[in-house]
Amino acid sequence: MEFEAVVFVMDLAGTAVFAVTGALAAMDKKLDMFGVIVLAVITALGGGTTRDILMGRMPPFYFKEYSYLLVAIVTALFVFPLRPAFERLWKPITVFDALGLGLFTALGAQKASAAGLSFVPVLILAMLTGVGGGILRDVLRGEIPFVLKKEIYASASLLGAVVFFILNRAPGVPQWMPLALCMIFTTAMRLLSVRFKLGLPTSG
Amino acid sequence: MEFEAVVFVMDLAGTAVFAVTGALAAMDKKLDMFGVIVLAVITALGGGTTRDILMGRMPPFYFKEYSYLLVAIVTALFVFPLRPAFERLWKPITVFDALGLGLFTALGAQKASAAGLSFVPVLILAMLTGVGGGILRDVLRGEIPFVLKKEIYASASLLGAVVFFILNRAPGVPQWMPLALCMIFTTAMRLLSVRFKLGLPTSG
Amino acid sequence: MEFEAVVFVMDLAGTAVFAVTGALAAMDKKLDMFGVIVLAVITALGGGTTRDILMGRMPPFYFKEYSYLLVAIVTALFVFPLRPAFERLWKPITVFDALGLGLFTALGAQKASAAGLSFVPVLILAMLTGVGGGILRDVLRGEIPFVLKKEIYASASLLGAVVFFILNRAPGVPQWMPLALCMIFTTAMRLLSVRFKLGLPTSG
Repeated sequence: MEFEAVVFVMDLAGTAVFAVTGALAAMDKKLDMFGVIVLAVITALGGGTTRDILMGRMPPFYFKEYSYLLVAIVTALFVFPLRPAFERLWKPITVFDALGLGLFTALGAQKASAAGLSFVPVLILAMLTGVGGGILRDVLRGEIPFVLKKEIYASASLLGAVVFFILNRAPGVPQWMPLALCMIFTTAMRLLSVRFKLGLPTSG
Repeated sequence: MEFEAVVFVMDLAGTAVFAVTGALAAMDKKLDMFGVIVLAVITALGGGTTRDILMGRMPPFYFKEYSYLLVAIVTALFVFPLRPAFERLWKPITVFDALGLGLFTALGAQKASAAGLSFVPVLILAMLTGVGGGILRDVLRGEIPFVLKKEIYASASLLGAVVFFILNRAPGVPQWMPLALCMIFTTAMRLLSVRFKLGLPTSG
Repeated sequence: MEFEAVVFVMDLAGTAVFAVTGALAAMDKKLDMFGVIVLAVITALGGGTTRDILMGRMPPFYFKEYSYLLVAIVTALFVFPLRPAFERLWKPITVFDALGLGLFTALGAQKASAAGLSFVPVLILAMLTGVGGGILRDVLRGEIPFVLKKEIYASASLLGAVVFFILNRAPGVPQWMPLALCMIFTTAMRLLSVRFKLGLPTSG
């Protein structure tokens, strides 16, 4: 499979899993069907939009390639009637969110690197792609963004972006490897921190 | 009257009615006079600003044409002492908001179409122009955005944008008609949904 | 010292004092260390980012000049363990916030003027540079932005920007004077309004 195709499929997968978290978060606040779709779309596309605004790349990617919107909307319509099933899964928002965080961190790092940006902007844009949608989702729900609260979340995204940057500069590494390892590292670190209740110090 | 003049007058009317809703919403939270003006301006200009950021059109229109700011500020100064009078009107925020929703949806659809954008971006930008200011207003007041909650609101804007798009492509339709019918359709649908307590299903 | 160097030092000072307010505000909500850093960075860089988005100047300044990020992060790391010391100071957030408001209002007015913008855009961009970071900080903490609530805040920034604009156009005035007097005027007006409990009328 072409590298561009891999990136595209990962992007749609990230869109779908973040749409699931947006839809579940909307239903949690008893929003109606349209509100559920809107919050799913904003959660799925918000991180990439913020990244592209900061990269000076408007109009956004989903104005030309409609698959992203379609995936987010169809996902929301799918989740809407299946809420009880999702609720029975183990911490479903947490798992889908960790997947989306890993996928979007890797894709954000990839896009910022491909634009020739250096270390610090790559880290910022990777993290923003990973956490931006979730921040918008939580602000629109009237909650303090999850990413700012306890437990390892944005820090997993940041370290994942460092993994991407190092591998991407290393000689002889195949093109897919920084993407894959950044994604796996970020998601795994996030899920392990939940499983073992790891966290950073708070100011008590 | 020239078509451009009609668009301009509708734009100022939308600015004024959204400034009314922003000012009333600010007074509801006991903000001071300056806070009332700021929230009126953000509600009135927020939707168009968001649209123009996504269209890559910065600096925003109100940096060159000061009428928008002036209308928003004067409206806020006018509403400030008249609050009791506004409160006696029937659901005043709802009615002004429905008018602003219709006007800005139509103008957003017009501006996106005139830029040569296709169906999906026109719908997104029309809806964003219509609901963006209200979302910012509610987030800044510490409330879940009205648009995401029960009742038909963003969906009225979306269907209104579809009406615009179809009429705008139809042969032999005068230039003002898509604008006028989109505006009337959106506002009427919103008001009827309030009057008859229509709503979309929730996940309750 | 060169004028550009003065602007740069003021910019870093504003970044540091706003990072202090962001870090203290984050600790107030019991965020973890990473959340404290993120909120410090957003508070410090949010106003300038919003200004630059509206000026159509992306990517943002801190993608090329890393001192801003470094100052914000180091400040947050410094404040984190010293919270009790800061708490013993008199209304520390208020004082640092007033300093940041004055510095960033002056710098925003300077940058908008240097870009050749006219009176109204200069006022808007100066105020947005001054209050934008604090608005993002408060929204992300789940609070109604301080700037919208009682007491003189955004109005101090607005009047300070008027001071800048007039002095900047006046003949024979040295280049540093509009910047310095705008900063001093804005900060002093803000602190005096707190000290003497001055405020604007509310609609109560």
